[in-house]
Parts: sequence; structure tokens; C-alpha cells
Amino acid sequence: MSGKFVTPIIVVNFKTYTEATGKRAVELAQKCDKVHRETKIPVAVAPQLADLARVAEAVSIPVFAQHTDSIRPGGYTGHVLAESVREAGAIGTLINHSERQLKLSDIDQIIRIARENRLVSIVCANNPSTSMAVASLNPDVIAIEPPELIGTGIPVSKAQPEVITGTIKLVREVNKKVVILCGAGISHGEDVAAALKLGTQGVLVASGIVKAKDPYIVTREFADAAKK
Amino acid sequence: MSGKFVTPIIVVNFKTYTEATGKRAVELAQKCDKVHRETKIPVAVAPQLADLARVAEAVSIPVFAQHTDSIRPGGYTGHVLAESVREAGAIGTLINHSERQLKLSDIDQIIRIARENRLVSIVCANNPSTSMAVASLNPDVIAIEPPELIGTGIPVSKAQPEVITGTIKLVREVNKKVVILCGAGISHGEDVAAALKLGTQGVLVASGIVKAKDPYIVTREFADAAKK
Amino acid sequence: MSGKFVTPIIVVNFKTYTEATGKRAVELAQKCDKVHRETKIPVAVAPQLADLARVAEAVSIPVFAQHTDSIRPGGYTGHVLAESVREAGAIGTLINHSERQLKLSDIDQIIRIARENRLVSIVCANNPSTSMAVASLNPDVIAIEPPELIGTGIPVSKAQPEVITGTIKLVREVNKKVVILCGAGISHGEDVAAALKLGTQGVLVASGIVKAKDPYIVTREFADAAKK
Amino acid sequence: MSGKFVTPIIVVNFKTYTEATGKRAVELAQKCDKVHRETKIPVAVAPQLADLARVAEAVSIPVFAQHTDSIRPGGYTGHVLAESVREAGAIGTLINHSERQLKLSDIDQIIRIARENRLVSIVCANNPSTSMAVASLNPDVIAIEPPELIGTGIPVSKAQPEVITGTIKLVREVNKKVVILCGAGISHGEDVAAALKLGTQGVLVASGIVKAKDPYIVTREFADAAKK
Repeated sequence: MSGKFVTPIIVVNFKTYTEATGKRAVELAQKCDKVHRETKIPVAVAPQLADLARVAEAVSIPVFAQHTDSIRPGGYTGHVLAESVREAGAIGTLINHSERQLKLSDIDQIIRIARENRLVSIVCANNPSTSMAVASLNPDVIAIEPPELIGTGIPVSKAQPEVITGTIKLVREVNKKVVILCGAGISHGEDVAAALKLGTQGVLVASGIVKAKDPYIVTREFADAAKK
Repeated sequence: MSGKFVTPIIVVNFKTYTEATGKRAVELAQKCDKVHRETKIPVAVAPQLADLARVAEAVSIPVFAQHTDSIRPGGYTGHVLAESVREAGAIGTLINHSERQLKLSDIDQIIRIARENRLVSIVCANNPSTSMAVASLNPDVIAIEPPELIGTGIPVSKAQPEVITGTIKLVREVNKKVVILCGAGISHGEDVAAALKLGTQGVLVASGIVKAKDPYIVTREFADAAKK
Repeated sequence: MSGKFVTPIIVVNFKTYTEATGKRAVELAQKCDKVHRETKIPVAVAPQLADLARVAEAVSIPVFAQHTDSIRPGGYTGHVLAESVREAGAIGTLINHSERQLKLSDIDQIIRIARENRLVSIVCANNPSTSMAVASLNPDVIAIEPPELIGTGIPVSKAQPEVITGTIKLVREVNKKVVILCGAGISHGEDVAAALKLGTQGVLVASGIVKAKDPYIVTREFADAAKK
Repeated sequence: MSGKFVTPIIVVNFKTYTEATGKRAVELAQKCDKVHRETKIPVAVAPQLADLARVAEAVSIPVFAQHTDSIRPGGYTGHVLAESVREAGAIGTLINHSERQLKLSDIDQIIRIARENRLVSIVCANNPSTSMAVASLNPDVIAIEPPELIGTGIPVSKAQPEVITGTIKLVREVNKKVVILCGAGISHGEDVAAALKLGTQGVLVASGIVKAKDPYIVTREFADAAKK
């Protein structure tokens, strides 16, 4: 895995929010970069594909694609090639987010293609058993996100701690190395601290930061909580 | 429709070919730009999403996305927002390419969203009846492409002229304004000339240019043929 | 089109409701059959695929599949072949219901395959412009159903009469013959009467009948309203 | 798991072949039933959904659906409800066949729903790592089928024995109980014998039997080979 992916990490998924599109994607990424420089806590960003190159140019923290397809170069109009996101400056890619779910065989294939292109693979899963299944496919990172909590502000690390610990237990049965993140509803520093205390190595967060009144302050709060 | 979309036009779809990814996407777009400057024939390019911004910065010819999704801003990880491709410099988007086919209701919705974002909508269709259906949805441009000829080097304009004329007839029954392009197998200047003679207003081309030994020479040949 | 498809018609979509599954599908179809025998108003039913044969054996009213795929015989595990639903006793098929939406080229292809197999094609559409698009594909029947009203009990024929009349107008511009149904929220006889008065030739109904306390009474009320 | 699912087993997938549609599905199932009665080797059949009820009535061997959806009863037009295939006489369902691939979270959900409905779940996987992932989800049966061999007549058990043994090894790391079948290209008795010798508990076969000149003879040959 890329030397740039160090834990504990805060991965900020920009989704397709207005607040994180175009010029505002660059600005948001710069705030995340600032928090990283101030705290030394790793922060990564996952902007939209059309914003990838400009964000990657503007910051020195790791940049991820939100999705890549299970294709190799060829005639695939409108698809996302690993090579293209790599060349645009991404060091990795989200895969199988609950808002962009994939067939099992495609997840397997995208992980392989990511590895061939030296991209860090972060595969999302919706519950403990699918997390264990994903761990069998040997990605670099798993992000467990119960979809029913996404965007609610109810943090999985506090509302469903047993989901996190159960997931970690099952994942470790088949994979000792994979990095485990958790996400959904992460809104406060204490949610991040709780996630790390449960044994995860970081958080995947979106609206908690992107739609915050002051994203810098929330990111900083997250990083400070991760530091302790 | 954008003042930048003038016919007869040559629209070059970069697909996910190695020869048109990253730095090579920029170089290919610059060759297309050169042909336009030399011949005054409109040439447009449709690079991959991750290459959109850098291509748009590097050239002054129209740049299109290869796909946008039927979404408005919000929580849609891994999707393509019209606003994002617009801000990256695209003036329009391909929709429903045969390699990225869409549900009918999504095509309808993406055309509306494109219009709201002042993006030129180029909707692909696979035969005369689906072209007529697409024309009913009132996009800016229709591109008829029989999928069985895509990538073959057998030009639709010569192999299936009746498909083109039949399509034009049906499309005009429901829509007088929509621009009609044709594609699939366009490899030589004479294929372009044949397409225009049949009544289309331009061509959608991919491998014929992208995978040519010298893309500049082929693009120039196409433009010269369009000029006559 | 099959001689069995006569208008004004009430088409009852059983969806995957418990109240219309297995033995209860047969019983519900028999109630619809009874209403037809009593009133002479055409009533058709669309049970689940696994219930198709037993329902078709039990009743003499027309039976429809809820979906068929755009395939011809071959190696397509888990797909729905027109030949199979025909041989199970269906006289036609729903296509592109808002809960089972399809790619444009597949809708076109399924209509052709249905015709080859002498199956009546009922294609659903979600708004006036997609209805016009569907009409271009020349199916036997169009059913306009605004998805936001499905299952609400708010009848499209009363809440959005302009959607119905607008649809009829657009559809007739491209297709004089296609039968036009409307659906979504149809709950009372007066909704049926309103739909017919607006110029449709019948209704597509699901929960209004399937989930009624007494489906026979509601179906009879619909038929009586259609009679006037 | 249902007491009716005994190994070594021959599961015959009827796909959507003409030779296994409608009346011919019933006849083919009866031939499989005959082989079972003669040899006592378990044989199961997976006809199309519209043929399920009539096949289940006509034979006493186990009958499977080729697909069910990840839904519970409700408004899901054109979907396949576990309850409906159960009531039509199926004792189980294929899931995720390479011709009907599913999202990871749907596979997980369909296995749960199958269990709730006392349906045997046979989940297909395309390679060793996805087989291990599927095993993590705890289905009743896994069927490993390299897609590139499906329909070729080149038996996986002879062409890629290391795929089979590698799969068994990985699957057993996470699941001691799951039944393991293999498929793709199984055409002769010796292919069945080879599959069992490698450690599988049966085969999933389609064209090898369905498209045979005399399906009874081939099924009998398979059963005799399984007996030794």
C-alpha cells in the first residue's frame, strides 16, 4: 500500500454536495490540508472525478477517487479507468460505497486493478458479514458504514458499537492486515475518539464535515480527537 | 444551445483508451484544436472525467463529458454531477452511449438537468425507433450509432445509409430542431462526407481517430471532407 | 394485438404483495374474473411469474406477466423469456414499470420480442415526455404512472388531470393507435370514471385493489364506474 | 438446510433454453426424476420462474428457482419474491449466477431471506477469492463456476483442477459446513467423477444436459459417475 496512507486517518468523502464541487472542492481540500499540517493527523479527501486533478494539484494530502470501474483500457465510454484517476493525482479509490454499490465480482476485479495501478483500495461494506466477505478479497482498507445511519448525524461508533466490534472480530478472522475504518453519522470529535477506541484505524466522513458551518473547525476537532 | 456548438461538427469520443488518457488526452485534444484552427471546421472532444479539467484548460474547442448522472447535488458518492463537469470546463455531455446505456426516465431527467446547467445534451441511440424516442425528449443533439458497427471500421454512413436516412425521417416527424449526428465505424474522410450527404450534421467518432497511427492526419482528413 | 385485449379495461398489477402471492394470487384473480363475468367490463391481472401458470389456469380473463427480459432463448440464467410466459398462459406483459425500469434500447427490444411472440405489450412511462418517447416505439399499450403518486391513494386522474391530457396529446402526435391507460393512486370508482373521461382507455391499478379490505367490492366498483 | 438436499448432487440449470421451456421443461425434469429413481443419486432442477409450479407438480426431485430478489413482500413489480417461489414448489434458489450477477449486499440479503423462507441458497461465484467471500456470508451451498468455461464443453474439473482445489481450501478456512459444487463445461460422466474426486460435493450443469441429443442418457451417465 502507498506509503502515503498512514493511520489513524480521517477520510473525507465529498460526495456530490454543492459545498464540495468545483472551486469549493479545492477550498475544502485546502482546509483539510491545513488541519493535517497543524496536527500531523493524516487527512485524505475524495472529491468528484471532474474535480480530482485540480484538488490533487492544490494539496499535498492524499486524494482518492470516489469510484473506479472494473475495466482495463478500451472502448468503455463514460467509465472510470484506474489509470485516469492515478494520472490525475489520486493515490487510491473508494469502492462499493452504499450509494454506488457493485456486483461482488466487480469489487474483486476493481481491487486487483487498483493494486496493478498502485492505488489504495478502500472498500465499503454495510454490515459485519459483508465486511468479512470484503476482507476475503484482500483490499487495502475496509470502511464499514451501516447505510441507515449515513447522513443522520447519529454516529455508528456510539449508536452501534457492537456493529464495529463485531465487524473487527469477523474481519480479523480472515485478514490480519487490512486497515479498518468506520463511517456513518460521524459528527463530533468524540465520535472519532469512540471509533478509534473500539479498534478502528480511522473514519470515513462526509456530511459531518462537508455540510458543517465551518468545515475547518470540525475537521480540526476530528483530528484533535484522533490525536489523543 | 451553447453558441459554441456549430455544425457540421466532428465529435471525438476519447472513451477509456490508453491513447487518450491523462497527458495523452491533452495532447490528442490539442491535435483536434489544431485541426479546427487550420480548417475552421468545428471539432469537439469528449475526454474521461478525470481528464476533463486539464483538457478544457489546454484547448479552446468545445469539451464534453462522456456521461453525467440523473442527479442533482446531494449525497451520491461516485456519481457525476452536471455542475461538476460544467465547472471543469465542459460545454456539454454525451448521454446514453451504447457502452453506457441508461433507463428511459434517466435519459429524460439528464436532458432536463443538462439544460438547467446550460450543457449541450448529445444523446446516443442505437436504431431509428429509439432515435425517434430520444427526439421526443427534446435533447440538443442525437447521435445515431448502430452498436454492431462500433469499433469495426465499417462506416455506418456507407454500410447502412438507409439506417441514417430512415432515422432522419423519423426524428424530423417529432423534432425539427434537434441536431443529428451519426457514428460507428467512421474511419475515412469519405465516410464523413457520406454522412453529411445523407443529411446528418456531423459525426461522432472514437477509435477511427483515437487509435489511428496519426490522429492529427485523420482528424484533418475528416475536417477537410466536412468542408467540401 | 390479441383479440382478448378490449377496452375500457382495468389491469390489476399484483406486484409482490403478500395478499396477491401464491394461493391468494389465484383467489384474487378469481374475484377479478367474477367481476368481469358480472359486468362484462374487461379486467386483466398481472400476477408474479411463479404464480402465472396457476392463475392462468384458474381464470378466463387476460393474464399478464409483470416483466419480461430483452432476450431470446439461450444461456440467460434467472431471466424472463417471452416464450415462457406465453406458454404459462400470459397474453401479454408489463414493461418498464417504475419499480422495474429499463434501458431505452431494452424497452424497444422487448416490444419487438413481445410482438414476435404475440404478447400484448403494456409499457409504463412516468411523465408526458417519456410517454411520447414510448409511443414512438410502437407498443400496444402505454400506461402513464407518475411515480410520486403510486401507492398513495391520491388518484392521478383527479390530482394531475393535466398530466393525463398532456400525455394523450403528445402520444397522439406520434401514435394514433396505441391504447392509453393511466395509473397511480386509483382507489375509487370515481377515479376510474375520471380517468376515462379524460380520454384514457382504462386504468392500471395495484394497491387500490390488492390491499383493499374487500378486493371484490373495489374491483366491482371500478367496473361499474367504467360502464357508465 | 432442507432434508431434501443430499449430496453428491447433480443440479441441472435449465437457463432460458428453448429445450427447457414450458412443456419441454416438464419433460426434461421428468427425465432427471427418472434418473434419480433409477440410481438414487440426488438430481435437482432449476427451471424458469414461469415453469416452476408445473415442474414442481410433475416431479418429486428438488426444484430450484434460478433467481430470487433481495426483497420482502411489498410494491416491487416484476421482482421475484422468495415466498412466491416457495409456494410454487421450489425448495431453494440459485443466487448470483454469472449470467445474473448481484451486488454484494443483495447476495447477503437474499441468503438471509432464503433462510427465513426455508429455501436452500446456492450462491454462484466466479473464482477462488469471490468463493471465499461468498462463504463468509454463510449460504447453504456454493457453486464455483469460472465464467470463461461456461457453455464451452471444457470441464472446469479437468481444465482447471487447481481452481477447484484452491477454492475448497479458501472456502474451508472460513466455513466448514457449506456444500461446495462446481460447474462450467461439465459434459461427461468423467467430468463429474473428476469434480467429486477433487473434493466437491456435486456439480451445477446446464448445456451439457439441456442441449444434449438425449438428456436422459447424459444425466444417467452423470449419475452413474457420481455413484462410484
